[in-house]
Amino acid sequence: MTEAKHNWFHDPITPDFTQLHSLKGIVYAIRTRYQEAEVIETGSFGRCLILDGKLQSSEADEFIYHEALVHPALACHPRPEKVFVAGGGEGATIREVLAHRSVRRAIMVDIDGEVVDLCRRLLPNHHRGAFDDPRLELRLEDARGYLEQTKERFHAIILDLPEPVEAGPAYKLFTREFYALVRERLELGGIVVVQSGGASYGRIECFTAIASTLRSIFPQVYPYAAEVPSFGGLWGFTLASLGPDPLSLSPQEVDARLEARLSHPLRFYDGLAHRGMFHLPKCHRERLAQEKTVIADDRPFYIY
Amino acid sequence: MTEAKHNWFHDPITPDFTQLHSLKGIVYAIRTRYQEAEVIETGSFGRCLILDGKLQSSEADEFIYHEALVHPALACHPRPEKVFVAGGGEGATIREVLAHRSVRRAIMVDIDGEVVDLCRRLLPNHHRGAFDDPRLELRLEDARGYLEQTKERFHAIILDLPEPVEAGPAYKLFTREFYALVRERLELGGIVVVQSGGASYGRIECFTAIASTLRSIFPQVYPYAAEVPSFGGLWGFTLASLGPDPLSLSPQEVDARLEARLSHPLRFYDGLAHRGMFHLPKCHRERLAQEKTVIADDRPFYIY
Amino acid sequence: MTEAKHNWFHDPITPDFTQLHSLKGIVYAIRTRYQEAEVIETGSFGRCLILDGKLQSSEADEFIYHEALVHPALACHPRPEKVFVAGGGEGATIREVLAHRSVRRAIMVDIDGEVVDLCRRLLPNHHRGAFDDPRLELRLEDARGYLEQTKERFHAIILDLPEPVEAGPAYKLFTREFYALVRERLELGGIVVVQSGGASYGRIECFTAIASTLRSIFPQVYPYAAEVPSFGGLWGFTLASLGPDPLSLSPQEVDARLEARLSHPLRFYDGLAHRGMFHLPKCHRERLAQEKTVIADDRPFYIY
Amino acid sequence: MTEAKHNWFHDPITPDFTQLHSLKGIVYAIRTRYQEAEVIETGSFGRCLILDGKLQSSEADEFIYHEALVHPALACHPRPEKVFVAGGGEGATIREVLAHRSVRRAIMVDIDGEVVDLCRRLLPNHHRGAFDDPRLELRLEDARGYLEQTKERFHAIILDLPEPVEAGPAYKLFTREFYALVRERLELGGIVVVQSGGASYGRIECFTAIASTLRSIFPQVYPYAAEVPSFGGLWGFTLASLGPDPLSLSPQEVDARLEARLSHPLRFYDGLAHRGMFHLPKCHRERLAQEKTVIADDRPFYIY
Repeated sequence: MTEAKHNWFHDPITPDFTQLHSLKGIVYAIRTRYQEAEVIETGSFGRCLILDGKLQSSEADEFIYHEALVHPALACHPRPEKVFVAGGGEGATIREVLAHRSVRRAIMVDIDGEVVDLCRRLLPNHHRGAFDDPRLELRLEDARGYLEQTKERFHAIILDLPEPVEAGPAYKLFTREFYALVRERLELGGIVVVQSGGASYGRIECFTAIASTLRSIFPQVYPYAAEVPSFGGLWGFTLASLGPDPLSLSPQEVDARLEARLSHPLRFYDGLAHRGMFHLPKCHRERLAQEKTVIADDRPFYIY
Repeated sequence: MTEAKHNWFHDPITPDFTQLHSLKGIVYAIRTRYQEAEVIETGSFGRCLILDGKLQSSEADEFIYHEALVHPALACHPRPEKVFVAGGGEGATIREVLAHRSVRRAIMVDIDGEVVDLCRRLLPNHHRGAFDDPRLELRLEDARGYLEQTKERFHAIILDLPEPVEAGPAYKLFTREFYALVRERLELGGIVVVQSGGASYGRIECFTAIASTLRSIFPQVYPYAAEVPSFGGLWGFTLASLGPDPLSLSPQEVDARLEARLSHPLRFYDGLAHRGMFHLPKCHRERLAQEKTVIADDRPFYIY
Repeated sequence: MTEAKHNWFHDPITPDFTQLHSLKGIVYAIRTRYQEAEVIETGSFGRCLILDGKLQSSEADEFIYHEALVHPALACHPRPEKVFVAGGGEGATIREVLAHRSVRRAIMVDIDGEVVDLCRRLLPNHHRGAFDDPRLELRLEDARGYLEQTKERFHAIILDLPEPVEAGPAYKLFTREFYALVRERLELGGIVVVQSGGASYGRIECFTAIASTLRSIFPQVYPYAAEVPSFGGLWGFTLASLGPDPLSLSPQEVDARLEARLSHPLRFYDGLAHRGMFHLPKCHRERLAQEKTVIADDRPFYIY
Repeated sequence: MTEAKHNWFHDPITPDFTQLHSLKGIVYAIRTRYQEAEVIETGSFGRCLILDGKLQSSEADEFIYHEALVHPALACHPRPEKVFVAGGGEGATIREVLAHRSVRRAIMVDIDGEVVDLCRRLLPNHHRGAFDDPRLELRLEDARGYLEQTKERFHAIILDLPEPVEAGPAYKLFTREFYALVRERLELGGIVVVQSGGASYGRIECFTAIASTLRSIFPQVYPYAAEVPSFGGLWGFTLASLGPDPLSLSPQEVDARLEARLSHPLRFYDGLAHRGMFHLPKCHRERLAQEKTVIADDRPFYIY
């Protein structure tokens, strides 16, 4: 008989649905200026970062999330050299960005320096030294504020931000005004990708609202999804483009680009995975097509 | 503030991972000769069938599971007329089978008549009258025993069986000996599809073992997956074929076949969904390729 | 091996402490004008009444609570003939009151007629026909309002009310102004008893505040406790008296009075139990003595 | 609004009843030769010792348990000089024993040295230096084996042992054969006290079986109880005596003895608490009187 576990982390996914992960240790817990942050060891997914009681990423499957977030956008771009990352405190998003040898400059802007510090010390398997890459500039400030004052333009912009909740300030990074600013900061033919929340059928409203808002600003918008088990299912991403079209790339072309550019092998993403991610089920495509919400600074959107 | 829920159904997915669904009612509970069966109302996924404490299917997303189970196999076949279903007590598998106008005869064999009765009375949204279709023959007995004594051959065989657990007898429906029998009962160019358990990366061992076992018997084996939220993530299916190749069908061909054949519209499955389901991530494909387990009558396989 | 249970009622006792009861059925659930009410079947304590997500009383141990609430007060009184009960929707408090043959008239005032109805229909083991006793007058209205307008006086007043929570109106039945009104409605030598919330050491603040408030109005105040397992531990009661002293009664005198008066046998309470209940541990007595809070209409008290 | 907690320790009290304590830290976890041991920080009861997934004692209310275990026996004895303790790894039982200035020699025998070490390092608020008292002899071995080979006799013997579970060896310390051995090792007029498991009405079978077994060996047996909130309710103890009678002591006599003997003040126990603890409710007394079970080496007793 399997031994019963007695310590558990409770992760409320919706008011009607909660996930319990067996808990082997609470490595560290702080309240930063912005949020409650913890690093825990789970029996289900290894070491995890928890922000405000929500699992943010796990050692066991963060590779799925971060590869799915970063590589479709960069693979679509013919030569990404300058990349901007908003959020991504664990350092795993920049790890994947910097794996592209074409990248000469990456700038990461995260508002919570205490969380970045915590991850740097306690999540070495997440960042794997990426914070020390000389091509990286790390800034601890508000990403919107930074983009408003800079004149720089990027080949790719990656928005790796927690979904907006009522209490927090993150909602200003999910509005059409912010996406218009992002568009201005893209080079010609540039690409933005937005982590877009849960995509499990039945709790898809964040995903569809982000896609709909991006459609109001960008000429081409491509929602896609990958399953991240520690998040409780399918996860949504939205790629918006001023040029490249991810659907036009054959699996072979994706694999050839990765082969030419990458300095470390991938585990989740390749040409066939790319094809799978961009072919959503009918019910998802219908919900995405029907969605009319445009999130705006004065019409914010919050999730549970 | 959202009102706290206080009644919950606890669904242990693994020893380290449990899902809680808010519980609005316990509609019915019996102990049959074979198992403990319940119909409950959840806040998360509506009315659900629970067998031995495990969620089997929910009103909210059973359409994903049943469409993903039935239609890829039937769409691949040029003209499925005779279809065999093992298990599928809810009646939703035969509902989807009988949606194909080409089907002239469907036989469903389920060992637990008390569960079939329960579903017939209490899960009308699952079967939607399929039990009354004159093309259906329903038999309440062991599916392996039935296939051993019949001489009939089928265009498609659908194995909609709970994954094998140590206590139960279902393990004999997951062995190479059983799959060899299934192969004998297929017409030339016939297809079998096997519900294959969880496919979330990290708890994929049932899926890979079933695929590996089918590879020892069938010339062509195609694992695929779809997310069923109430099951806690990605779900695995394996299609094994004596002829048709699901990867050779374009989305347009799939859609044309469905258009020509179906008597009711689908919600989850179509040509694009078909393409997405058969393109698994790299890590899944590697695990499937590496798996060498061949389940046999004297080397059974059990899950948690 | 014991079979794992999968349906559970979660009862949050404090923000740091929750009790889970296995759930066999949800018999009925309504939202009344005043509260959310449910009758459930638990594996731990049988059929239970739940109000606003909190267990109110269970078939298995309600006898402890109701005997502990009613009989010390009535046993202390030389001849209780007129008894007033506020709350007590299950009908078990009046059941115990009416067991005293000396009682000629009992009036029960409960604000929530829908809950009283529910209990009458679904908790027959609680009330056991007490609602049909011709000595009972049942009124469905606010107890404070009723006591303000009546001129009647009682030998005993029993306040069987849920502890005050912020959202509800019950807080007006726990203030010094209300207790002063209660005192006015007592006959000479009358007694009041107040259900006083949890008395487990560490979550005793409701108990001590009620005792302290009663001390500001009554000449004699006697806190006591009994363990009600379904409530999660020791439960507090406070007896306030215009005459009789419960500590002066020997176990033999208590037993003699019960013998002379009662029409049904008791299970929890007798002379020795009486002695045990009124001898609290040192730490409880110290906390009660130190408490200075006096709850008032304009200084209400709320529990979690 | 109170912030929701997300890390929890689950303590299964019975198959139908579980308690959840919010979890602030897992201080240490080991698997010793005998058991799984953890020290955790809870929000409900502070630092706790957990053995095999069951809460053993908490910083917040261990004083109740340990004072209730030790002092009634020692207060009843006219002059306890030699005291034997079996179990009690936290060091809090010997702390209370050694508080009696009359005690010249205390011997503590605990089988699990790794747990004793753990407690010594991580539970300083439990032992408060008692392990360093020169009157103490600590032995890490089986208590029954030790008592079999020694010729020494004691004024009081305190059995502070976890209740017997099927997997463990502790059941041999709860049998009539062991109690007969204990009796032999008592001085004339000696006293033994046995921690006797839960005493909440409805899960009292361990308490009654121990009392019944002691009655088969000792001329005088006195069950009593105290509420230990972190254990989930009322807790049972059984005092068996070759002479002194705890019921014959007035509260004043108890207080006078404590005053004369103790080197530190108590928080829970005094003369009035003594009186309360030995006056159990009617339903408890009836169950104790009816119990006929005599636990024997060849008829062991196990709890959930």
